[in-house]
Amino acid sequence: MIRQGLGFSWGAAAVSNAMWTGVWLKDVLEYAGIKSHDDGARHVCILDADKLPNGYYGTSIRREVAMDPAADVLIAYKVNGEELTPDHGYPVRIIIPGYIGGRMVKWLTTIHVSSEESDNHYHFFDNRVLPPKVDAERALAEGWWYKPQYIINELNINSAVNCPQHAEVLPLSGPAASSTYTVSGYAYAGGGLAINRAEVSFDGGETWELCDQQCPEKPRHMGKYWCWTFWNYKVDTARLLTAKDIRCRAWQGQNTQPQL
Amino acid sequence: MIRQGLGFSWGAAAVSNAMWTGVWLKDVLEYAGIKSHDDGARHVCILDADKLPNGYYGTSIRREVAMDPAADVLIAYKVNGEELTPDHGYPVRIIIPGYIGGRMVKWLTTIHVSSEESDNHYHFFDNRVLPPKVDAERALAEGWWYKPQYIINELNINSAVNCPQHAEVLPLSGPAASSTYTVSGYAYAGGGLAINRAEVSFDGGETWELCDQQCPEKPRHMGKYWCWTFWNYKVDTARLLTAKDIRCRAWQGQNTQPQL
Repeated sequence: MIRQGLGFSWGAAAVSNAMWTGVWLKDVLEYAGIKSHDDGARHVCILDADKLPNGYYGTSIRREVAMDPAADVLIAYKVNGEELTPDHGYPVRIIIPGYIGGRMVKWLTTIHVSSEESDNHYHFFDNRVLPPKVDAERALAEGWWYKPQYIINELNINSAVNCPQHAEVLPLSGPAASSTYTVSGYAYAGGGLAINRAEVSFDGGETWELCDQQCPEKPRHMGKYWCWTFWNYKVDTARLLTAKDIRCRAWQGQNTQPQL
Repeated sequence: MIRQGLGFSWGAAAVSNAMWTGVWLKDVLEYAGIKSHDDGARHVCILDADKLPNGYYGTSIRREVAMDPAADVLIAYKVNGEELTPDHGYPVRIIIPGYIGGRMVKWLTTIHVSSEESDNHYHFFDNRVLPPKVDAERALAEGWWYKPQYIINELNINSAVNCPQHAEVLPLSGPAASSTYTVSGYAYAGGGLAINRAEVSFDGGETWELCDQQCPEKPRHMGKYWCWTFWNYKVDTARLLTAKDIRCRAWQGQNTQPQL
């Protein structure tokens, strides 16, 4: 059963890769004299200039993430060598690699360190995943938006098929026909964790085959993988004729995506 | 179908918590003058005094893990305040929090930094998880033991029921009877990641209910969670009478355990 949720689905996630230029949030917080955890500096609240129906957009991240030298949290002013465009958060925005986009505020106006997480409307009512049985009425009545278990921060393990593309036509005879076809796509895990394998299935998930994998970007200075992995699998064209569907799944360590 | 694998199953994983005392592997490697990644220092190989049928036991970890100040990799000489016993690796052993035990060599004799991962027999032929269809003959013939995708390093997401215990009897009448029962257990994820929720099901996995969760140990200095989380769920005793079984599952971020 597929049911319309409260929000909308990003499908195979909205993942892209870009080169960002900026200053470390960590350095700015240290320069400003951030207090210790025991003195109450536990959350870094960030607010932007996007005035929405329920006020300006804002959210917060844990102090440990903001201050982790491996986490690479950035106040960015350039993307791929060019100044941010207005749509992408000019003049400065937050980048938190491996996190969902909703925490990376654009048009940054305010950074505020607090003992509590952000009290912004959108920190609670956006970028949460509630269990399927919790509908809008129940979510409000029972305070599900405030339960810390349902926040999204790090992206989950994702993979997607790129080729064949939607409505792609494969010639089986004639000069353009080929005896093999290369199925390909990408995979990604949040938190800087490496995707260590990608697999495809042609029989509805009964059996899985190991793909070739390329990760053109090397891990960062402390071993974090912030960029996606590409995978591909060469298959006899004849097998595609009998395939129920083409599925992919990725693994991060011994964890994989849930079964459908 | 449940099939006997090549090795054996740890079931809900062999997880325990202890307080370790030692020196950081990172400090020892820096003191010894570890070369840069570009100069070929990419793997830290560790060897112990346990002479097995295929030589001494050894393995290796990536340089990034060994040198990560957040990873807390330790050369330990005490556990819970006392010197290690011979069984636990006296005089010194390696501790890699969040990793499978097989990488934490006891009776440490040698640390060797190399451009290649360990060539030890047990580095390849132990602590791997191969796909179910790969039997012993095929694994050897096709070199599956050497495929980097199947190594186990960080533990996967785990959870286990502690109460009810095996063969536990619940009185339904008389002075010991109670109208409620508290199901409880533990959950753990590798890599220092927090378990952010635990759920139970009484209907074979059709629906899941959110447990209360306690994580008595605070995260480490850089926000890593190395200790398990305890969960519990109070249920009307009457519901247990109709329960098909009791299942639990844990979530780390938006990732969960695979369905059975």
